[in-house]
Amino acid sequence: MKEFELIKNYFTEQAVKRKDVLLGVGDDCAVVIPSEKQNIAVATDTLVAGVHFPVNTSPRAIGHKAIAVNLSDLAAIGAEPSWVSVAITLPQIDEHWVDEFCTGLFDLCEYYNVQVIGGDTTQGPLSITVTAQGLIPVGQELLRTGARSGDWVYVTGELGDAALALAHILGKKELDKTIFDKVRQRLDFPTPRVLAGQALRSYASSAIDISDGLMADLTHMCRSSKVGANLVLENLPLSESLVAALGQEKAIEMALAGGDDYELLFAVSEDKKVGLEIALADTGVKFTCIGQLNPSEKITTTLNSKPAAIKVKGFEHFSKND
Amino acid sequence: MKEFELIKNYFTEQAVKRKDVLLGVGDDCAVVIPSEKQNIAVATDTLVAGVHFPVNTSPRAIGHKAIAVNLSDLAAIGAEPSWVSVAITLPQIDEHWVDEFCTGLFDLCEYYNVQVIGGDTTQGPLSITVTAQGLIPVGQELLRTGARSGDWVYVTGELGDAALALAHILGKKELDKTIFDKVRQRLDFPTPRVLAGQALRSYASSAIDISDGLMADLTHMCRSSKVGANLVLENLPLSESLVAALGQEKAIEMALAGGDDYELLFAVSEDKKVGLEIALADTGVKFTCIGQLNPSEKITTTLNSKPAAIKVKGFEHFSKND
Repeated sequence: MKEFELIKNYFTEQAVKRKDVLLGVGDDCAVVIPSEKQNIAVATDTLVAGVHFPVNTSPRAIGHKAIAVNLSDLAAIGAEPSWVSVAITLPQIDEHWVDEFCTGLFDLCEYYNVQVIGGDTTQGPLSITVTAQGLIPVGQELLRTGARSGDWVYVTGELGDAALALAHILGKKELDKTIFDKVRQRLDFPTPRVLAGQALRSYASSAIDISDGLMADLTHMCRSSKVGANLVLENLPLSESLVAALGQEKAIEMALAGGDDYELLFAVSEDKKVGLEIALADTGVKFTCIGQLNPSEKITTTLNSKPAAIKVKGFEHFSKND
Repeated sequence: MKEFELIKNYFTEQAVKRKDVLLGVGDDCAVVIPSEKQNIAVATDTLVAGVHFPVNTSPRAIGHKAIAVNLSDLAAIGAEPSWVSVAITLPQIDEHWVDEFCTGLFDLCEYYNVQVIGGDTTQGPLSITVTAQGLIPVGQELLRTGARSGDWVYVTGELGDAALALAHILGKKELDKTIFDKVRQRLDFPTPRVLAGQALRSYASSAIDISDGLMADLTHMCRSSKVGANLVLENLPLSESLVAALGQEKAIEMALAGGDDYELLFAVSEDKKVGLEIALADTGVKFTCIGQLNPSEKITTTLNSKPAAIKVKGFEHFSKND
């Protein structure tokens, strides 16, 4: 296929040439040079057309997202992304599509100085699997298991916008064009919180990225760390677009259950709270304290200091796959 | 899906627990501990149902092959396999299928002390992408570019059996059941030449694994190394089954063009020939000298000392994707 040749050109002509890549694309394997002071974090995520993105998603967004979701996993453990392997399965798709897809993919790699070291291109139903690797100083990994009762719970960015865009695309929610255009950016071009993840290394007790939805991923963290949590719902960071489209109560529900946010959720002990806030402020990323961990092994919510009875759509579903 | 739970059980309960895996399945990323004396080889291959294996292939074979084709790439560069990430996309398939698939996959990993450190399970059309990593002492990589004019050309094992099995499955060639059963093993359960690849490190000038067919992969090596080759066709290692089914001439054609052999093709200089043969004999793997490199930048063939006019089916096709 001509499309394969085009992808090959992107692979060989990419701008990023890292010194720790001894051999990139073109042999049986890539060869990378590790450093003894850093461990290597490895993340793998697959995006399937019609499952992980709507079939009419722009190819540039698909390319971006395939990298972004993996860099988000690396960010959640505190790693600095370095190398990615990209396996692309595509039906006969036109050259314009492939060009746009590769632009989205390589632009994001270039931004973070990540080299595409290899991969595979095969013919079949559209899907992309990326394995991303990153470097992390020995002993500084941010694990899901590290959270402790009493720690404060934070998130970066704002939650629920991607879910709102998806609801509109699936015909479940009418939206003004202005609002849809804004929230669609958050669905199609999520920002992996790479710098924030690295800033958290010396401060956070635990971190995870929000891909399944705040409630589901908080559950993952709480179960791994054997703690519970209370969320202060009026503190959830919601965009103006989300509140304008849904009103506060439904906006909160969507922020809790939505998914596809690719923000970081993390915990920090009382004594490291100030240091963490200073370190994060340096990265320019918005962050918000949304609750506190406790020994209950349950997740509760309060709204304006009263127990909240907000239903989390889809939560039962996600909890199956913890 | 219940199938996902089953896969998760296999991931968490696998027998291999390597000391250089700090964090395996269960967090956002895996974390591995590199060694300063070894570089890391990274290979990625995707198998798509109906493209890379017939749709009625046994699930155990699919699981085996998904790992084997990647370990074969690592072998071709001389690496010792260590960690794999496995991305599985499957439609609703029954638990028996998944159980057999995982058995094939984890059995091969266990045999080579390879740990499955992570991956992804998603719903969609059946395909498997594996990223395999391996360790290789600094400076001992076997590259495609290292072959020199005058070097001898070798292959491991026997060639063409997998292609014969595929021809039968596709209805292009009738076969006795006894013969089919033998050659189907070579298609479904290829043996990655892991130990042979490591034995070659100190001796071979270049190596590649034969996935596209001997002629196509020899072309890859020759182009990368800017040399030509002459193959002595009567020396090609052919199985009794292949010759019995096709006769010598057609058997040679299939060995040249077939593909899916996953044997190693390698070059060695005159002065290292004896050392190489001793090192390989220790591994118990069959190996055969099948020709010599020359400065022509062309590939020629001789049969019983005369120029051969054997047509290589599919060669034009493969040469497009060099």
